[in-house]
Amino acid sequence: MEHWILGEKAFNVEKLRHAETIFTIGNGYLSTRGVFEEGLAGEERTTFLHGVFDAAPVVFTELANAPDWLDLQLWLNGERFNLGEGDLLAYERHLDMQNALLTRRLTWRSPNGLTCELLFERFASLAQPHQLFQRVQVKPLNGAVTLQAQASLSSEADNNGLKHWHHLKQHAGSEQAWLLCRTRESGVELAAGFNLMVEAKTAVKIAGWNVQGRPTLAVDCQAAAGETVTIEKQAVIYTNRDTADPLQSMLKTLASPARWAEAWPAHQAAWQAEWLRSDVMIEGDAEAQLAVRFSLYHLLIAAPRQDDRVSIGAKTLSGLGYRGHVFWDTETFMLPFFTYNRPEVARNLLSYRWHTLPGARRKAARNGYQGAQFAWESAATGDEVTPTWVPHFADSTRLVRIWTGDIEIHISADVAYAVLQYWRATGDDVFMLDRGAEIVLETAAFWASRVEWVEDLKRYEISDIIGPDEYHDHVDNNAYTNYLVRWHLQQAIGLVDWLAEHAPERLKELGQNLDLSSAALAGWQKAADLIYCPFDPQTGIIEQFDGFFERQEVDLAALEPRDISVQALFGIDETCATQVLKQPDVLMLLYMLPDLLGPEVLRANYNYYTPRTDHTFGSSLGPSIQAVMACQMGDVAEAYDHFMRAARADLRDVRGNAGDGIHGASAGGLWQAVVFGFAGLRLTEAGPQVSPRLPAGWKRVAFTINWRGQELKFEVMPNEPQA
Amino acid sequence: MEHWILGEKAFNVEKLRHAETIFTIGNGYLSTRGVFEEGLAGEERTTFLHGVFDAAPVVFTELANAPDWLDLQLWLNGERFNLGEGDLLAYERHLDMQNALLTRRLTWRSPNGLTCELLFERFASLAQPHQLFQRVQVKPLNGAVTLQAQASLSSEADNNGLKHWHHLKQHAGSEQAWLLCRTRESGVELAAGFNLMVEAKTAVKIAGWNVQGRPTLAVDCQAAAGETVTIEKQAVIYTNRDTADPLQSMLKTLASPARWAEAWPAHQAAWQAEWLRSDVMIEGDAEAQLAVRFSLYHLLIAAPRQDDRVSIGAKTLSGLGYRGHVFWDTETFMLPFFTYNRPEVARNLLSYRWHTLPGARRKAARNGYQGAQFAWESAATGDEVTPTWVPHFADSTRLVRIWTGDIEIHISADVAYAVLQYWRATGDDVFMLDRGAEIVLETAAFWASRVEWVEDLKRYEISDIIGPDEYHDHVDNNAYTNYLVRWHLQQAIGLVDWLAEHAPERLKELGQNLDLSSAALAGWQKAADLIYCPFDPQTGIIEQFDGFFERQEVDLAALEPRDISVQALFGIDETCATQVLKQPDVLMLLYMLPDLLGPEVLRANYNYYTPRTDHTFGSSLGPSIQAVMACQMGDVAEAYDHFMRAARADLRDVRGNAGDGIHGASAGGLWQAVVFGFAGLRLTEAGPQVSPRLPAGWKRVAFTINWRGQELKFEVMPNEPQA
Repeated sequence: MEHWILGEKAFNVEKLRHAETIFTIGNGYLSTRGVFEEGLAGEERTTFLHGVFDAAPVVFTELANAPDWLDLQLWLNGERFNLGEGDLLAYERHLDMQNALLTRRLTWRSPNGLTCELLFERFASLAQPHQLFQRVQVKPLNGAVTLQAQASLSSEADNNGLKHWHHLKQHAGSEQAWLLCRTRESGVELAAGFNLMVEAKTAVKIAGWNVQGRPTLAVDCQAAAGETVTIEKQAVIYTNRDTADPLQSMLKTLASPARWAEAWPAHQAAWQAEWLRSDVMIEGDAEAQLAVRFSLYHLLIAAPRQDDRVSIGAKTLSGLGYRGHVFWDTETFMLPFFTYNRPEVARNLLSYRWHTLPGARRKAARNGYQGAQFAWESAATGDEVTPTWVPHFADSTRLVRIWTGDIEIHISADVAYAVLQYWRATGDDVFMLDRGAEIVLETAAFWASRVEWVEDLKRYEISDIIGPDEYHDHVDNNAYTNYLVRWHLQQAIGLVDWLAEHAPERLKELGQNLDLSSAALAGWQKAADLIYCPFDPQTGIIEQFDGFFERQEVDLAALEPRDISVQALFGIDETCATQVLKQPDVLMLLYMLPDLLGPEVLRANYNYYTPRTDHTFGSSLGPSIQAVMACQMGDVAEAYDHFMRAARADLRDVRGNAGDGIHGASAGGLWQAVVFGFAGLRLTEAGPQVSPRLPAGWKRVAFTINWRGQELKFEVMPNEPQA
Repeated sequence: MEHWILGEKAFNVEKLRHAETIFTIGNGYLSTRGVFEEGLAGEERTTFLHGVFDAAPVVFTELANAPDWLDLQLWLNGERFNLGEGDLLAYERHLDMQNALLTRRLTWRSPNGLTCELLFERFASLAQPHQLFQRVQVKPLNGAVTLQAQASLSSEADNNGLKHWHHLKQHAGSEQAWLLCRTRESGVELAAGFNLMVEAKTAVKIAGWNVQGRPTLAVDCQAAAGETVTIEKQAVIYTNRDTADPLQSMLKTLASPARWAEAWPAHQAAWQAEWLRSDVMIEGDAEAQLAVRFSLYHLLIAAPRQDDRVSIGAKTLSGLGYRGHVFWDTETFMLPFFTYNRPEVARNLLSYRWHTLPGARRKAARNGYQGAQFAWESAATGDEVTPTWVPHFADSTRLVRIWTGDIEIHISADVAYAVLQYWRATGDDVFMLDRGAEIVLETAAFWASRVEWVEDLKRYEISDIIGPDEYHDHVDNNAYTNYLVRWHLQQAIGLVDWLAEHAPERLKELGQNLDLSSAALAGWQKAADLIYCPFDPQTGIIEQFDGFFERQEVDLAALEPRDISVQALFGIDETCATQVLKQPDVLMLLYMLPDLLGPEVLRANYNYYTPRTDHTFGSSLGPSIQAVMACQMGDVAEAYDHFMRAARADLRDVRGNAGDGIHGASAGGLWQAVVFGFAGLRLTEAGPQVSPRLPAGWKRVAFTINWRGQELKFEVMPNEPQA
């Protein structure tokens, strides 16, 4: 069990939201934050199910917080147990990441002086993802207790105060309670139900309180000092996204009540299989080991295994941040882990983009372009859901314009890149023919219509956009975008050739909805040939966008120490006028297309852009990739600093916003930093190769890669690759 | 009881929200929409308390829906009573406006065939406004019934899905249940509690279900066929706006349980006194009589009697429309009824503006002006709370800019006008010295800094605003605004003279926060002398704003029949390019300042602007004032048409939006139409005079006017005034 346990030794209400995020449990169907069963003022109590979005002001749509399956109120001799009152004589909580089991153990002295030991456990079955289990043990220490336990389901669940459910039906008998409700705007029906099993030495009475909107089971029993009462809850959730009749499916599952002990072995076996394919072992660095497992745990509990119409939002399912919206974070940062470990999940995630092509086509059409333009923020339908105006953080009567949904357009190339990377890694021609090619070609058609011909210069340009570095908006010829567009168009043309050779019928089919005529393809080729890709052969430096070199230089070291971003320090407009980067676009480009310009160009750009980047409080996407680049430069010590910055983002909440949810991109980036950075994995046509550059103290790194259907195990020692 | 009863003979789920609005009850402290005790899908279940605002997205702040004191679920032999199931064998509901009592009587056959008579009654005590009463009688007709009744209070109350309350404390014993909660952002604490008294022939059991966030009392009893069970609820609500410790105040009131029968006489007496001062009798026109009483009823239940820090929102407290925000509707349309009937209430409403002067000063300062600029939409603090961007009604991904909060500025003159009108009618020098003068002078200082000097023309202008006619925005020199500003500045200068003579100390005090130096006052005088007030001496016509005459003429008659506004028909920009008016600014001006330019000018402008106005679906503020103007033109038949349009706005929901709440301005305008229009009341220095112009069939109009401390009763017969 070494380095599998994330523990908390004391209860700290100041860090409540952070702890809720990191102690999230889930099974790829839903996730539930690490809230306390009995609730606490200030908590953010959420259970999010993949794909269950509903309309919301300002943010357009958000994951709808589901009825809370965890609710359990304990009344001990008439006093309600809660950590806001009484005294905590002992407390510890831990997440067993190997088995996705959360445990809390405490001794509480009530205001009236009753002392009880309490043990809380929960898991969301990975083997049967609609089944959720909860167990509570109560042992009075210094006297007898009359215990009342109340467990409810409520259709009043909310997101930061916004209700998303209409109540439809309910039941509360003495055996079970359930609820059927429907999202207010999007019409998702959800059925949730539960039963209780109580073990006590005295008689147990369970009453159903059929309170409208809040079916409740109330348990009454007694325990003498030293006697333990055990309450087990099995909860079941289905929606009409899973089954035609969620109420019947839920009731059927609930009707054969499974005990915790019966469900546990299958759950544990499922997790064992999961880790067998996914684990990364790091010997010699306990913090790095824990951090990497923590990142993979959070990716795995958010990974849709049964559903290919959903993807993983920027904050996974673990918090309210970004409302469950999906960004390029998924394809560029999280997807490689799945592509190389769980290609079935990667296929689901990419299929989400295929299912949302209609939304992407609407976005392109609305903007006057051809093909498909993926939303910067995407939800159920693929329509753009980036907020356009949000209240100013310091003055809610002022509104701030958010431009990313309008002009941060590189995501259409990022998705295509991810499809092609998946195809290359898996050789999954079936997916490529059925879905992948359509994504790559429709987005290529978008680019061919998006590029702007500049007659004076006889070249294509792309003006007025935002690159990955969001400190600079409304820029022209962002290098990351322009280079990637060129590559994307070239790949698309190559894909058409491949289709013509291997699947001419499919090519013909695709040509029915998309202009793939030779004239159109000649246009793509011309765009690829003539798009402006900035490069200074004298210095080897790629200018991040037109005029970047003229922006003001800032000595970032002189700003230290600081605990806020440069943008927060200087202001939005002032930062835009400088050369300070939220993340280094050009290095990201050279990471993604390593063979583009050779090692000397890479070094020149690394040396130029690294000191200009806000590594500490800029983008959370930056540090892990910066770690890979530092490895490639041979600077392992600096790489390790960047790596640990990413490793601590959520574990230690170094950015102060982990309470909003896990930084999924940082978690996925951490895996890339270990595998592509420290282990130096390269996927060549000759096969995967490693060239390790391990940090000081690391004795061994071991991981598995799925390459074209084969599982390859790597064990890397310092300077000694082994396949 | 003739013409005091608003009745409904059948249940029509299609008109649910309309019926909820018109059957609202209240007592000036709170109002509760006419929802069913047991709830119904699609209802808008709200209880709004004056001044209890909380933050909300887009609209900045809104009245927070309070925990529902009406909730009562009935289970008859295990079947939940609700109108969504079973059969309604009989149904009628009526509001007794004389006593503000709502009654519903029905016979319901359950899905299983049990038939019951049910009688529901409720009132919110006018004598003790924290006390609310509810009574339900259940009589099974065709068999015995085992009855369970559940009554809850919930901290999950929401506004269209947005929760505003944090749960603090609760209790549910067998005697009573209560709840203490706090608004999420604004920190208003609210305590609500209730007790139940049950009369039945069999034993009655009342259990407390202490469900967290939802304290519930559950009643169990039985009734044989033909026996009646009566359940009475007394509910009590206090907030920390009323008392330092709302929980203790609530518990104290609840501790001496009042029965319905005990509370009723004081409530009835209070309403009798209210109507004695306020009623308008119309003989010979039942519909007009009912409509006027209906309007006055809704003004009276919304009138703050104990609180001078609140005002009446555009939709009173009867619905979610405009979120409880206060507009010029209050001062210009509703206030005259109170000024001339209930000057104490008028003083409270105007004191609200005095209490919110700090917000108005902030608005002026933020815009770079002196003095106080009242918010177009105002709530708890007086800061501007007009939404700036709202989702497009047809496409929620598009946002529409709302300009009224920025540039509809005439409200600052409207409020001053109302203060001076109140002063003139009441002679209340104390109010004027303490509060009124500060309002009039601070807003005058705003105007003196707001007017723009045009050197070429040697005059002041006001550019880029919106007048009352909101079909035209971003206009220059709106006549309504410019004329009223001139009048306002003149009055302010006169007021300074009056203060200098009668209260020099107070003038000195006012001069400490506001520049009242002779140089400043000379500036006011210059602004009043030189502000451009458009007038064509040839035609006598006042151009509504610069360039209005050049806008496109539209034959409105040719658009008939239509059931939407001209703006909805043509579009926002297209309507702005025409001469079609939402309401006629110039006629409004001449209504407010009747001695300005004489009867011939009035006639010329009446003839010019009347056919250009969208009377049917333009502003709901228009018809009642148009009725007065038509009376002054001697066209009583046309006046009656406009009057009935206003009379039916909510009663018959002719605009289709009565479900959002009562049109308070239309209700207040209706009173003005009768008193100033048909009765022809004029308040001259010699005293009030009437010159009746009664519609055909009206045999008598009787009303009371409070003039400088005296209650004057008027009885008007056709062509025969009597004081």
